Amino acid sequence: MRGITYLLGAVVALTVVVVYKAHPSEHSDGEVAPIFGVKIPPGYRDWRLISVAHEEGKLNDLRAILGNDIAIKAYREGKLPFPDGAIIARLAWSYIPSEENNKVFGRAQSFVAGPATNVQFMVKDSTKYASTGGWGFAQFNDGKPADEALHNTCFACHVPVKTRDFVFTHYAR
Amino acid sequence: MRGITYLLGAVVALTVVVVYKAHPSEHSDGEVAPIFGVKIPPGYRDWRLISVAHEEGKLNDLRAILGNDIAIKAYREGKLPFPDGAIIARLAWSYIPSEENNKVFGRAQSFVAGPATNVQFMVKDSTKYASTGGWGFAQFNDGKPADEALHNTCFACHVPVKTRDFVFTHYAR
Repeated sequence: MRGITYLLGAVVALTVVVVYKAHPSEHSDGEVAPIFGVKIPPGYRDWRLISVAHEEGKLNDLRAILGNDIAIKAYREGKLPFPDGAIIARLAWSYIPSEENNKVFGRAQSFVAGPATNVQFMVKDSTKYASTGGWGFAQFNDGKPADEALHNTCFACHVPVKTRDFVFTHYAR
Repeated sequence: MRGITYLLGAVVALTVVVVYKAHPSEHSDGEVAPIFGVKIPPGYRDWRLISVAHEEGKLNDLRAILGNDIAIKAYREGKLPFPDGAIIARLAWSYIPSEENNKVFGRAQSFVAGPATNVQFMVKDSTKYASTGGWGFAQFNDGKPADEALHNTCFACHVPVKTRDFVFTHYAR
C-alpha cells in the first residue's frame, strides 16, 4: 500500500510539473479577435524560440517568433504543411538603444527590447480556416484584439510565402 | 498488482516526457570551456525566452537570451541575486536583410537571423565562482569553446551591472 502511495505521489508531482509549465501566460484575458475568432493561447510566453528579427520603418521593433510544441516539432523536422494544432506567436517590442550596453562597448551599437508593441498569432486548422491556407490570424495590442480592418490584411500579406505554408519565419539553428 | 503496473507505466511515461524535453540540444558535444569549466548545457535551445537584442558594429548580430527554469523563475519574481543553478544563454545569429520580407513591406526594413555566430552562457554557482560574482562564463563557436584570452574578458565586462547581479539583460514583458 505504501508503494502505491509513493507511486501516486510521483504521478501527482510529475503531472503538476507538466500542467504548471503549460499555463503561466501573463497576457491571456480571453477576448476573441475578429474574423478568425482566435484567442490569446494560454502560456504562449513559455513557448520555445523559432527565431528573432528586427523591423525598421514604422514598425521599428525587435521581435521573437515562438512556437507551441506542434509548431516546433514541425519546424525541426522540416515538415510542411504545418499540422493542425500548430500555433506560431510573433512577439514584438519597441526597438530602443541601450545606453548601459553602449558604455560597455564604447560605442553606440546596442539595441534592446523596450515596451511590448503587439503580439500576433497564426493558428493552424485546415478545416476551420480552409479559405485562408488553413491558418487563422490574430493580433492583440496590450491584450486587446486589433480591429477587423487589420485582420483583413493578414492572409494576403502571407500569400507570397505560400510554398512554405504561408509562414515567413525560418527556424534559427 | 495491475493497479501498480498502471501507475508504474504512468510514472515511466511522464518521466520519459520530462527527460525528453530536457535533452534535445542540437549543439552539446561535451567540450569544456577554459577558466570556468563550463560545458554546453543540454537542451538550452528549448529554454524559455528572456529577451532579444541587436548589436551593430563588429558583432552585427541578432540575439536571443534564454534562461533555464531557475533563471526564468528568478527573472519573473524579480529575485536578485540569481540563485545557484541559474543559467542564462545568449544565442546570436548574423544580422541579414530579408529580401523576401522587404518585398512584402515594399521597402528595405526587415532583418532576420542568418547563420549562428556563437553562444554564450552564464552559470550561477556562488561557491565555485565566488571570485567572479558567483558566475561562470563560457562562449562556444560552432560547438567549440572559445580560447582562454576571450574568457578572461567576460567578468570585467559584466562588472558595470553589478547591482543587477552582473546580468545585462532585462526580462521582456
